[in-house]
Amino acid sequence: MDRRSFLRASTVGAAGAAAASTLAAPAYAQGNRTLTMVTTWPRGLAGVWDSVERVANNITAATDGQITVEPRAAGELVGALESFDAVVSGQADMYHGADYYWVGQHPAWAYFTAVPFGMTAPEIMTWYYGGDGMALHHELGDVFGVRAFIAGQTGAQGGGWFRNEVTSADDFNGLKFRMPGLGGEALSKLGASVQVLPGGEIYQALSTGALDATEWIGPWSDEKLGLQEVCDYYYPAGFHEPGAALSVGMNLEVFNSLTASQQKIVEMACADAHQANYAQFIFNNGPALERLTSGGTQVREFSEDVWDAFGAASIELLNGYTSDDLFKKIHDSAQASLRSSSGWLDVSDSAYSRQRNRVLASM
Amino acid sequence: MDRRSFLRASTVGAAGAAAASTLAAPAYAQGNRTLTMVTTWPRGLAGVWDSVERVANNITAATDGQITVEPRAAGELVGALESFDAVVSGQADMYHGADYYWVGQHPAWAYFTAVPFGMTAPEIMTWYYGGDGMALHHELGDVFGVRAFIAGQTGAQGGGWFRNEVTSADDFNGLKFRMPGLGGEALSKLGASVQVLPGGEIYQALSTGALDATEWIGPWSDEKLGLQEVCDYYYPAGFHEPGAALSVGMNLEVFNSLTASQQKIVEMACADAHQANYAQFIFNNGPALERLTSGGTQVREFSEDVWDAFGAASIELLNGYTSDDLFKKIHDSAQASLRSSSGWLDVSDSAYSRQRNRVLASM
Repeated sequence: MDRRSFLRASTVGAAGAAAASTLAAPAYAQGNRTLTMVTTWPRGLAGVWDSVERVANNITAATDGQITVEPRAAGELVGALESFDAVVSGQADMYHGADYYWVGQHPAWAYFTAVPFGMTAPEIMTWYYGGDGMALHHELGDVFGVRAFIAGQTGAQGGGWFRNEVTSADDFNGLKFRMPGLGGEALSKLGASVQVLPGGEIYQALSTGALDATEWIGPWSDEKLGLQEVCDYYYPAGFHEPGAALSVGMNLEVFNSLTASQQKIVEMACADAHQANYAQFIFNNGPALERLTSGGTQVREFSEDVWDAFGAASIELLNGYTSDDLFKKIHDSAQASLRSSSGWLDVSDSAYSRQRNRVLASM
Repeated sequence: MDRRSFLRASTVGAAGAAAASTLAAPAYAQGNRTLTMVTTWPRGLAGVWDSVERVANNITAATDGQITVEPRAAGELVGALESFDAVVSGQADMYHGADYYWVGQHPAWAYFTAVPFGMTAPEIMTWYYGGDGMALHHELGDVFGVRAFIAGQTGAQGGGWFRNEVTSADDFNGLKFRMPGLGGEALSKLGASVQVLPGGEIYQALSTGALDATEWIGPWSDEKLGLQEVCDYYYPAGFHEPGAALSVGMNLEVFNSLTASQQKIVEMACADAHQANYAQFIFNNGPALERLTSGGTQVREFSEDVWDAFGAASIELLNGYTSDDLFKKIHDSAQASLRSSSGWLDVSDSAYSRQRNRVLASM
């Protein structure tokens, strides 16, 4: 995608926002109001839908009912991937989704969910709330007429389930691997035959050999899909989504029509949901991993040459987008934050955890 | 401390809360109100005071001015360590502090800041928001008539600054080490001569040899104190406060007098501040560590036998309090969450970060 196509997208976005302003105006009464929140998720999807409900319920509770947020599952009002356009056009007031679904609008949206070889969840927090991340999210949203905040977090997505053990980077050559998004693009540089299947079709594809491997979310979610029944090998650490934020985006005119206190409540409800959702996933992933291991799943770690290949492919992929000024600005900011914070986290948290876990295991 | 002394403390707490209810009642008007927040901090203390102001400003903004929170620095209304009693008695409406300052009231308060060999910040989030942590915090607070929420986070506190290199656990024997709290108690089991000095006296004590070593907060804060000028060796990973939460505690009668939406706003403002403060510390620690290293500080990691000794002393210390039922309940919950979540984080986040950092360093 070249710079001009982004500019076209922005023009559409701005026009959409202007239309939304006109269309939505009658609803901006002084009293209570209801905001429709389209989502990219099936209703009830464990963890993810909890984040949807948490944001919606907290906004309603904290505004004392001035704002009621009505979440709609994917397909109820618009299809999952139409959520962004629905908010830009004013058909819906806000969305809850993964911003990397909008990379067709602008590739920099990926940075507000996950990019390959990018940040872990604590590093995302550091960049977003301690550095420039949130401001850049808003700068990107302004191009399209959307005010977005990260509002959910799955933590690291597992490296994947494999029918056969992976011993070197060569094993990815020709491997039929289900992985959507930029991670999949990077993986194809390793020669993988990258597939994109919805969650409901993965189990069957692995059973029949139509797939050799897949990633999904993490142990808690993967166990529900039954992936341990059709794959013997699980690689917990993966390169494609080392932390995955979910976002709420609100039509900018709708956001600007809120009072300052309502805007602050939306912002806080999203920040609260980011942290709480991370906690929920990590709290549930631990016991799920224990169950999987007890059940016979073989847990493995990729070898260094595999990581070298993951890294080279990912950085090459990301650098390919830096001809776009806004992508480059966001990319440079995120990469600088990552390198700086990881320097401290590596010698403090990681070194401590390694030693503590070793000592506790011996007690 | 035995179980009876905790019960005495609870009786005092309950009586205090009842008195507060009576005394404070006239202030519970329908209109706007001002809540006094005493703190355990000097005004302007980098990072920590930012968390105080963030909570206060967000409560005011989100309630549209219904509640104004007025922070008072340590000594302005009461002394730092009198903050808890001031809130229990109703002299102040709320505090911002480190809950482990109240271990004289009940040792389990330590779990809501940090315990030796305990949880990192992401693990604290996991236990507090994803597990039973917050509910147990409230259960402990109910004993004293306080509703507390974690509301700040320094991340891992550095292992410490040493005038001489540490090569084995024996080096702690007789070492004059400044470390307050339960960490200091654990360290004394290794034969250290544990000192408790305020921040302002540490530099001088190290200069004159009255101290051999000290911990303070992290690179960002330590650099401001100039510790790199009086110690050659810095150990980033420490055992004593692997994550350190700060808390807001509100007089329970005051909390109960708030509307449901105001209570929700207080809860969300605290959760937001926990995450944002963590981000601020990590974002600033990275560059500070780089500056310290460039400036000649020798960065070291403790050897395995030192970690073995830290672990044994810490677990012995914590187990010593488990005769108290509430301590045991909180201890068991936290330790179970730690062991479970660390199992996943070790093979996902940590394994990923190690490989990513290795690959990026080679590019």
